[in-house]
Amino acid sequence: MDITLDGDVVRAGQRARERFYDSRGYGRVRGGELDLAPVEAAHLLYRGDIEGVDGMDFRELLTSTAVSEVEFFVYKDLRDRGFYLTPAREGWVEDSEGVDFVVYPRGQGPWDDAVAHRVRVVGERDGLPAASLGDCVLSVVDEESEITYLDTDRPEVAGTSDPSVPATAGDLLAERAVCWDPPAALYERAFYGQRLDEDAVQLSLVEAAYLAREGHLSLDGGAEAVVERGHDVEGERFDRRLAVYTALRESGVVPKTGFKFGADFRTYADAESVENLGHSERLVRVLPTEYVFEPRDLALDVRLAHGVRKTMVFALTDGAGVEWVAVERLTP
Amino acid sequence: MDITLDGDVVRAGQRARERFYDSRGYGRVRGGELDLAPVEAAHLLYRGDIEGVDGMDFRELLTSTAVSEVEFFVYKDLRDRGFYLTPAREGWVEDSEGVDFVVYPRGQGPWDDAVAHRVRVVGERDGLPAASLGDCVLSVVDEESEITYLDTDRPEVAGTSDPSVPATAGDLLAERAVCWDPPAALYERAFYGQRLDEDAVQLSLVEAAYLAREGHLSLDGGAEAVVERGHDVEGERFDRRLAVYTALRESGVVPKTGFKFGADFRTYADAESVENLGHSERLVRVLPTEYVFEPRDLALDVRLAHGVRKTMVFALTDGAGVEWVAVERLTP
Repeated sequence: MDITLDGDVVRAGQRARERFYDSRGYGRVRGGELDLAPVEAAHLLYRGDIEGVDGMDFRELLTSTAVSEVEFFVYKDLRDRGFYLTPAREGWVEDSEGVDFVVYPRGQGPWDDAVAHRVRVVGERDGLPAASLGDCVLSVVDEESEITYLDTDRPEVAGTSDPSVPATAGDLLAERAVCWDPPAALYERAFYGQRLDEDAVQLSLVEAAYLAREGHLSLDGGAEAVVERGHDVEGERFDRRLAVYTALRESGVVPKTGFKFGADFRTYADAESVENLGHSERLVRVLPTEYVFEPRDLALDVRLAHGVRKTMVFALTDGAGVEWVAVERLTP
Repeated sequence: MDITLDGDVVRAGQRARERFYDSRGYGRVRGGELDLAPVEAAHLLYRGDIEGVDGMDFRELLTSTAVSEVEFFVYKDLRDRGFYLTPAREGWVEDSEGVDFVVYPRGQGPWDDAVAHRVRVVGERDGLPAASLGDCVLSVVDEESEITYLDTDRPEVAGTSDPSVPATAGDLLAERAVCWDPPAALYERAFYGQRLDEDAVQLSLVEAAYLAREGHLSLDGGAEAVVERGHDVEGERFDRRLAVYTALRESGVVPKTGFKFGADFRTYADAESVENLGHSERLVRVLPTEYVFEPRDLALDVRLAHGVRKTMVFALTDGAGVEWVAVERLTP
């Protein structure tokens, strides 16, 4: 079998097509012959199904620049898990944008129409633009070549909690506000703030800014004074957090601090009252639209959320609109 | 009872001493009379034990600049938990450096010698220099005024694993090395790398750099080539990680990647073999000596470590020596 490297394609001929494409889904057919991506050829070499590529053995091909080691590890892992997959080259698959492999449902292959996962390969040191996530599976290869799969999605954010409350008054402290005698609904139904004693309720700066803007809270200097204080202590981050807080409340979702989980907010979609809160379903981290993740930080957030039975959601905003990206661990 | 604010001290007289110091451990005695810190006076006001400070009621004192709201929340929380405590002012307690409150064991007070906790009060937006941790309890007040207690310590790092292995050879790939036919001890006893197949073992760049420096691994260009590659992909962070990896191995501890936990390493103190690894006890995050934490990130790391039954340890290094700081959740 004559197998040669031609630029970034491995040409393998017609017999290879019968053996490797028709029965096992490797490569792409061109005029009855088989083209392989180098990573596919490396896998066939690794398995001993072919003997060489242009005279190179597996070791030589893997240490050459023709094959990315992280792509090879992911390709091998997915094959080991029983999937057929195709390198996402232009012309090889329908939509190659932003992904490295198109993975078919188990038992299916490139002859079928179904796609199980669109997989992007990421080394643990590669920067990962947050806005590029939402419709792919990340396969992150760490420095010891272990692979973590993370499914990314654009979730709907919607709940049934009414954010409006009877108006009340408060005092602005250094980094929070206090309502000394608020209506019971403020805390008990709409779940704003925390009790300071039987009467008084303390509010975070985002809660106070939102309530003041909505006309539910009056304090010296109004909403502007709260937002200004927010800027003093958090800078632009405060605008982003307030935009996300507002978007959540307007969607009927109750956001409370996510500090204990290292996040900005934990959220309750259907809170009816403090006594009937249920489990908070999501952790929300607020990020600038142009944020670039380190994969390690992403792994940290997703792992923690999983451990407390919540879904990690990133809220990307420039202070106006909000894009939501959910990331969860996946075992393909 | 005549109670006045005099600079940053509240003067409360002799009867207050009998009522509040002698029986409940508030304040400090000066010539038979009682001095209170404003936060203590605020607590007495809050409880209704005194009626005013210079004509101010609780609301006026809390919204004044005399009392920090976050200090008040922590003071109140510790009192609610049944502790007596003293503001860590110079001359009021023995060692006031770096802490805000000295907390006595339950049932004891400022008349006794024992100290249960030395507590530093931190707002969730305050920067927290990593090197300042190690002998205090952090009480972090989040934006909704909930308090998270974190105990910080300087742990011993020691284990019983032998880091030396018979010499072998390898190839350097883009971000790792591969030993194609290493001695079994490399992976099976000393737990370097991961199996690629029955023979070959892949090593991370820190593992390869350490082994090459120790003379256990030969590859083209030697240890220098690996370190150079490390710099190419990680910059100075690679020096820090290699310094910490080396310190761990030299202490008899086996470090493996902590990527799945968002950390640099997970560590095994008494690994005898891959088959007899036991549970990894610690997660290690490598940081520059001058690193300043955001409390939220610290909460995230510690929460995750707790959830996987490990202790979070920060390794502070400028590339040479390593300082270890352990941080764990505490319920006082």
